Amino acid sequence: MRKVAVSSWATSTFTKGTTKSVFDLACEASVQLIRDNGIPANEIDAVLFSSCAADQYSSAIVSEMLGISPRISHRIDNLCNSGTNAVASAFAFIASGLCNMALVVGTEKIDSPGNKLLWDVTRGSFMFPVHWAAIFAKAHMKKYGTTEEEMAMVSVKNHKNATKNPRALFGKEVDLEEVMKSKSIASPIKLLDCSAPCEGASAILLVSEEKARTLDNPVFIKGIGQQTISASFAKASPDLTTVESARKAAQIAFERSHTKPSQIDIAELHDAFTILEIIAYEDLGFAKRGEGGKFVNQQQIAINPRGGILGCGHPVGATGVAQVAEIASQLAGKAEKRQVKNCKTGLVHNLAAAGSSASVIVMGV
Amino acid sequence: MRKVAVSSWATSTFTKGTTKSVFDLACEASVQLIRDNGIPANEIDAVLFSSCAADQYSSAIVSEMLGISPRISHRIDNLCNSGTNAVASAFAFIASGLCNMALVVGTEKIDSPGNKLLWDVTRGSFMFPVHWAAIFAKAHMKKYGTTEEEMAMVSVKNHKNATKNPRALFGKEVDLEEVMKSKSIASPIKLLDCSAPCEGASAILLVSEEKARTLDNPVFIKGIGQQTISASFAKASPDLTTVESARKAAQIAFERSHTKPSQIDIAELHDAFTILEIIAYEDLGFAKRGEGGKFVNQQQIAINPRGGILGCGHPVGATGVAQVAEIASQLAGKAEKRQVKNCKTGLVHNLAAAGSSASVIVMGV
Repeated sequence: MRKVAVSSWATSTFTKGTTKSVFDLACEASVQLIRDNGIPANEIDAVLFSSCAADQYSSAIVSEMLGISPRISHRIDNLCNSGTNAVASAFAFIASGLCNMALVVGTEKIDSPGNKLLWDVTRGSFMFPVHWAAIFAKAHMKKYGTTEEEMAMVSVKNHKNATKNPRALFGKEVDLEEVMKSKSIASPIKLLDCSAPCEGASAILLVSEEKARTLDNPVFIKGIGQQTISASFAKASPDLTTVESARKAAQIAFERSHTKPSQIDIAELHDAFTILEIIAYEDLGFAKRGEGGKFVNQQQIAINPRGGILGCGHPVGATGVAQVAEIASQLAGKAEKRQVKNCKTGLVHNLAAAGSSASVIVMGV
Repeated sequence: MRKVAVSSWATSTFTKGTTKSVFDLACEASVQLIRDNGIPANEIDAVLFSSCAADQYSSAIVSEMLGISPRISHRIDNLCNSGTNAVASAFAFIASGLCNMALVVGTEKIDSPGNKLLWDVTRGSFMFPVHWAAIFAKAHMKKYGTTEEEMAMVSVKNHKNATKNPRALFGKEVDLEEVMKSKSIASPIKLLDCSAPCEGASAILLVSEEKARTLDNPVFIKGIGQQTISASFAKASPDLTTVESARKAAQIAFERSHTKPSQIDIAELHDAFTILEIIAYEDLGFAKRGEGGKFVNQQQIAINPRGGILGCGHPVGATGVAQVAEIASQLAGKAEKRQVKNCKTGLVHNLAAAGSSASVIVMGV
């Protein structure tokens, strides 16, 4: 099996209320990636498009707009996990020899149909993810004594990180009091515990080992783990203090990459709601079970340096791609103002609604 | 790289006007595959869903309805080429070691949004594929003297083949006169030159080499070629007597499988319109350029034994999967009434609208 590297990346500024189409946004990030890195576009032999947008033949449209005629091209969707699913697909296409250079571009508009859980509703469950986030939070508070302040600190940290990211939706810090006093959405979840839907795009280029050899500082994908448990919240997790899919995905990714949680220097964690970052610390083995709340302000692992989903906004199909882009840029030492020092091994953790599915990707130089 | 085999398959009866949902249809074919073949469902570690249906998180829904918790699961769409894109993805996931047993299920309802080329329309091109089929037909007739009767013979042949397929939408033969006298849709294309939208599902199971060793008669995927040229008809092919994407995809598939066109015993060709089968003969190297019209009634290669898209109907996202299912069943000697004798090497040829993208898959025992 061939090794696969992430060679280039470009993420658009996440916004609210653009008039640009999902295709305009996808091309904007892709063109930036191609131009800034002098990529020979005719060597791109796969274009995978990650989006929940309803448009048909969208990957072919993006390819044509970019002037690329790839061998492989299709659209991939799986709610918030779409982007990481597309990255896993590109990895598999290159590793198996079907292509050598894959552009993965994730894009979403603010009114994405991926923001609503319509199938859950028909099963008597919730339309909006905030409801299950509240249930996770209550369960974790009850079992482990996790506090609303600890959750709020996740928001404070990630909003602070986002101030160093010029492409984040939110550019200003929030303090603990602001989070605690923000409007209750579904108790104990408050407005500033929630990420915001927005529009945006992120593109990354995956290349084969042979092509990676020509790079200054190649960042390799060392192991991918994925796990789907269910489609609906009702069946996602028997224990509501943990995300079973993420635990299993992490186990696979750590095994495949021969890596331990203690070796991770930097991580992008799925923090669509603050409680999810706390549970992720535990599911990934960064913190002991029940101690996630106290782990928020640790200094050992740089977590969500771009600002996470809370700080950057959450353009559903773009999120997973942007997470991989961030870790690649950090490990390559090209993360500008927010560069984390001495990071060699990174991790991406992404979830679909209610943790019904999860992806964990370990990357390293 | 690990070899990949198609171990099992099940295709539903293609119909018009069912009240079943896209999920009901997907599960029907999948459950049949699992039950008939005694598949341990908990060993299925990827579920890829091919469909143009607008439903969100559809692959997770299908997985949950089947009681499967796969590692990898997402939806894939690329118009008529969706199913073959999903098969290529499953192949890559297994070949690269990310999974060992992948269920690919393609499903469509008759009112699929994949039946309309809405993006082409905004570029001043056609809403319905029949228009570009007419342009291909006129170009081929003008340059090579191909006749309307030769095209009609494709319809006669494939409808005849479909009478041996109990799951085909059309169960009766049509004669040359009927085709020639059928209503003109977009001259020279007549009603019986066209396939019909319908609903249906097809499921196949791809397995790793290790798992294939336990099978009686494993059918291997020997080479996959894919090529995207464009999204819209206007840019699909500079020469309208050939489908450039298919020629390139075939070249890749033949190279990778170390196979020549003359070694193919049996083929599923994309015959959404009769002219496309004639052009496919030439693009695949079965007939010389310009001689496709005279190739229709040759006896050397069994072409579209299940009845093709013309005889079976065209549930867009299911078609590519059903094509692979047919070739696998034939090569395994399990094609029931329509079994072709002595077939060892088979080919699947599938297109998206106007040949804007193509997949060619070579399979063998």
